[in-house]
Amino acid sequence: MEQKSTFPASAILPAPTLSRLPGYLAFVSLLKEEGVEYVSSTQISKEINVDASMIAKDLSFLNIKGKTRIGYDVATLEHKLQEFLGFRRGHNAVIIGVGSLGASLLQDSGLANYGLRIVAGFDVRPELVGTSICGVPVYDMADFGRLIGQLGAGIGIIAVPMEMAQRVCDEIVAAGIRALWNFTPMRIKAPAGIVVQDTSIYADLAVMYNRLDNIRM
Amino acid sequence: MEQKSTFPASAILPAPTLSRLPGYLAFVSLLKEEGVEYVSSTQISKEINVDASMIAKDLSFLNIKGKTRIGYDVATLEHKLQEFLGFRRGHNAVIIGVGSLGASLLQDSGLANYGLRIVAGFDVRPELVGTSICGVPVYDMADFGRLIGQLGAGIGIIAVPMEMAQRVCDEIVAAGIRALWNFTPMRIKAPAGIVVQDTSIYADLAVMYNRLDNIRM
Repeated sequence: MEQKSTFPASAILPAPTLSRLPGYLAFVSLLKEEGVEYVSSTQISKEINVDASMIAKDLSFLNIKGKTRIGYDVATLEHKLQEFLGFRRGHNAVIIGVGSLGASLLQDSGLANYGLRIVAGFDVRPELVGTSICGVPVYDMADFGRLIGQLGAGIGIIAVPMEMAQRVCDEIVAAGIRALWNFTPMRIKAPAGIVVQDTSIYADLAVMYNRLDNIRM
Repeated sequence: MEQKSTFPASAILPAPTLSRLPGYLAFVSLLKEEGVEYVSSTQISKEINVDASMIAKDLSFLNIKGKTRIGYDVATLEHKLQEFLGFRRGHNAVIIGVGSLGASLLQDSGLANYGLRIVAGFDVRPELVGTSICGVPVYDMADFGRLIGQLGAGIGIIAVPMEMAQRVCDEIVAAGIRALWNFTPMRIKAPAGIVVQDTSIYADLAVMYNRLDNIRM
């Protein structure tokens, strides 16, 4: 089953702050591997392209304080960031749609390091049902409602063709899933109280193309 | 070689607007397949969870106007969105790091539909150099500077382990790459005039975990 947060009820952080924290974590983990013991927000800022004052403010949400002239203790900072971000707890997830994108997420060993345990895949294609990918079993989507309780998963990763996204969303929410990680370009609608996180690499492509066109002028 | 935009010099759009446009496009493409001819911003709004007024404002950047009481012509809207977003032009890209993430991007047939042509991969691992993945050749990173001119690629996709991200960034920018699509959790620094687009699925995970913790309380 999923583990609850042991962190103080720290309220909802703004998404931009939350999105910056994993970048700090990545850099701090590097420092730790290199044997560095202390780091200041100014030093982090020099390396990762974020203002030092913004870094200090972001970290203050976590009740982490650096020592004057010494900075933050690197090991403590890494640990607190991982804990705060939920990366040290196990979050069980199932993936719906194990085509090329879904299968590559199943194969991404990185996700486990960030606290995501994919415990099962679901698909409608008979040739995929009953197989396993990297040790994760693939079940028939028709059995979703029956199996989801036993799997102890609160997160559903949607990796189906976009025309099926809304139907799948309705189906898995009805079965008790409370968080949807949507990899399709479709914006899906879910009832209040359900968390929807969109990850559209095509939206990022659109931003990159636009910036590239404008830089050329 | 890459094709230039034929669109009027439409200035830099805000990233949130640009990020919403592919969602409209996905929905409009669905409508077109279903044979729908006209759609209003109110109808789009009902289906994709964005305010109708915001949709109308976003689309006004593209000089698309709907007809009173009829709405937007679906085929025209799809075409203009694809063109504006750069999805109808070919953008040549190379991918640096063809490990599990890099290889899955090479296998994602969806990217070609969004105007991205991955023409080569680069890696430092001898067992990968000289192979090809889905028909795309993998070259030695040591030959990057020598080969990049022939490949006609302006975009470098960074899919290396995070501790190598900054070094790779420096190397490919020095070789003439003008846009970096960074899939590592590291925030990389690039000179002014270089486009950097971060796509960190782990940052999205952090936001989702936080929302999920707070919904439970």
